[in-house]
Amino acid sequence: MEHMVPVVSDLDPRIAARLKRDPAGLVAAVVQQYDTNEVLMVGWMNDQALHRTLTTGRATYWSRSRQEYWVKGETSGHVQHVRSVALDCDGDALLVRVDQVGPACHTGEHSCFDADVLLAGDDS
Amino acid sequence: MEHMVPVVSDLDPRIAARLKRDPAGLVAAVVQQYDTNEVLMVGWMNDQALHRTLTTGRATYWSRSRQEYWVKGETSGHVQHVRSVALDCDGDALLVRVDQVGPACHTGEHSCFDADVLLAGDDS
Repeated sequence: MEHMVPVVSDLDPRIAARLKRDPAGLVAAVVQQYDTNEVLMVGWMNDQALHRTLTTGRATYWSRSRQEYWVKGETSGHVQHVRSVALDCDGDALLVRVDQVGPACHTGEHSCFDADVLLAGDDS
Repeated sequence: MEHMVPVVSDLDPRIAARLKRDPAGLVAAVVQQYDTNEVLMVGWMNDQALHRTLTTGRATYWSRSRQEYWVKGETSGHVQHVRSVALDCDGDALLVRVDQVGPACHTGEHSCFDADVLLAGDDS
């Protein structure tokens, strides 16, 4: 699970030292609406995406399919204003609490988890 | 991002066909307390772990560090009773809503995201 090449980024080295990246140099970023606690989506961040997220206040990800950075909402206007960021106990996941403008999902659904329920039973 | 070896599991093939696994055959599983919406942890599931989670009602993961299945709470008693499971729009992340018994984190914290806050500002 160790990263195989040196990671060069502007991220604070004290934070970078605590990240446990996958072989592609990424950690999972769980995105949550800060006031309702709704989980909106999961993105992926490398060190530089995390640095930009922490310093610009706009959630920024690494696209695994396009192999490029993307600022959420840059095209759609559905930006995410970052309210807080936390790292989990083993360093391989981030919880990014945001104020989401418009729907979070590119399909137009409010959350990326709205459309494909595999098991339902919340209210049973 | 395609899985390199055939995936053999008991998972419903209609679900398996929608998963977009990482090179290790895994998808991220975001675990959320069903009634408060608190995000508790992130685990990893292969097809068989997802099958067990869906059919036993106990959240079951694949440990990337130990390379084995683990049923959350099997040792600690801090089990997760599964209430619902949803797949995200691009098939690489699951939202598992549970009723968590005791703390979710092996450190004793309630959530795995409680201890290491990188950016705070929820209430500002």
